[in-house]
Amino acid sequence: MAEDREKAIGIFDSGIGGLTVVREVLKTLPNEKLVYLGDTARVPYGSKSARTVKGFTLQNCLFLLENHVKLIVIACNTASAIALDFVASMFRVPVIGVVVPGSAAAVAASKNRKVGVIGTHSTISSDAYARAIQARDASVEVKSKACPMFVPLAEEGWVDHPATLAAVSDYLGEFGDSGIDTLVLGCTHYPILKPAIRAFLGPEIKLIDSGVETARAVKTVLSERDLAKGAGQPDHKFFVTDLPGKFREIGERFLGRSLGDVEVINVENIGF
Amino acid sequence: MAEDREKAIGIFDSGIGGLTVVREVLKTLPNEKLVYLGDTARVPYGSKSARTVKGFTLQNCLFLLENHVKLIVIACNTASAIALDFVASMFRVPVIGVVVPGSAAAVAASKNRKVGVIGTHSTISSDAYARAIQARDASVEVKSKACPMFVPLAEEGWVDHPATLAAVSDYLGEFGDSGIDTLVLGCTHYPILKPAIRAFLGPEIKLIDSGVETARAVKTVLSERDLAKGAGQPDHKFFVTDLPGKFREIGERFLGRSLGDVEVINVENIGF
Repeated sequence: MAEDREKAIGIFDSGIGGLTVVREVLKTLPNEKLVYLGDTARVPYGSKSARTVKGFTLQNCLFLLENHVKLIVIACNTASAIALDFVASMFRVPVIGVVVPGSAAAVAASKNRKVGVIGTHSTISSDAYARAIQARDASVEVKSKACPMFVPLAEEGWVDHPATLAAVSDYLGEFGDSGIDTLVLGCTHYPILKPAIRAFLGPEIKLIDSGVETARAVKTVLSERDLAKGAGQPDHKFFVTDLPGKFREIGERFLGRSLGDVEVINVENIGF
Repeated sequence: MAEDREKAIGIFDSGIGGLTVVREVLKTLPNEKLVYLGDTARVPYGSKSARTVKGFTLQNCLFLLENHVKLIVIACNTASAIALDFVASMFRVPVIGVVVPGSAAAVAASKNRKVGVIGTHSTISSDAYARAIQARDASVEVKSKACPMFVPLAEEGWVDHPATLAAVSDYLGEFGDSGIDTLVLGCTHYPILKPAIRAFLGPEIKLIDSGVETARAVKTVLSERDLAKGAGQPDHKFFVTDLPGKFREIGERFLGRSLGDVEVINVENIGF
């Protein structure tokens, strides 16, 4: 048990977006050691089918388990929406996604019981946010919208580019009259575009970013299972499935600090 | 040899873009049987490293060879730019990419010896177009520009959306004063955005789409090697690595006709 406490927290995302979750986990749990996997060779997940996303999620979890993690965070909304139940029921270590914490935060934030959710095609099709929100409070009305251009715009760094403003206006126009008072940014890339979204929707709509809530959920589970690490200087490991040039460059912006060593690995043959 | 003539032409792309090449091959070689592979589970290739694109290309070729093809067309600019030499030197069947035919067409079209090339990050970084163009005519000046947002915009079907116009203006602004008279659309998705590109650049700049030239190159090689199929009603096979919903929907627009059966396969374990 003491041995388990010294193990790392495993976190994966389809690419770099999950680093916004890592940032919050590092703030909330500064003593914990992290192993991060960015599946940059197969990114994005949000336009791919449930079958494929489940397969990728399983391989990523197996890689993290090979690295002896004590808990897995799925820091990707698409994978959380589609594959959390699938892997959580399979493995002995706890698996935490970003959808449930994000939904809880939205329910807590909404005063008028009208919540909007934006995400990738796959996340929105899965209806996972609406289900998680209504499981917590069936009286909340949920309006969802897929915004597939937001990931490439965030990766291009076009934070306040005219193309971004045009896309924001196209996708979010329908939220203007819908009466929502809370909008869940249901994709870890979207916080990068927060200024444009905020400018379009105005200050009265609350924007929910799952990172903070997910970090809190991790802390609770570690404490409940007596898995929290004591004091000590942790070292973190970053793995990617494609060469790390772009991951490092954009990732340090997402994470807000240097990444250190980033190792390239192959997750496709685990178990063979 | 007669047996070889009856074999199919294998064509692959990272996803659906290569169907614009298929359309031209079907027009030029109506008797030939095609096997098409769209690697939709790992799309896009254009933002990924050379090492990863080489690995994916090799796996895709192995899949096509398992299906007994007599010739392979790499209908993806990124894979052609990065991995053509690698696989062409490895296999006995001829392998044709889209970069060399597109470059030849650009050299033939340019009167003032100033050619522009647009493509994905990986295609442009590889410098493959500039090398192919200058190998044919060293006096041609080549100006290249990566346009990473064009693939998601084409897939979103935003042909004349304000976001597309803003992206076109951002990326192609520098071509206005450069004096080029020819622009290579160095990505099989870009022909979808031709109207916006044409509207921005004006009618005096010729736009080169590699599909037509590639189909012609295939015809020449089949004829040289006595591999052309005789008369007969061919049947085509379409394979994808992710579920075919989106592939079918967008693909029929790219191809301009119905796809028929689309089968999902896994290329990652070939040879294991």
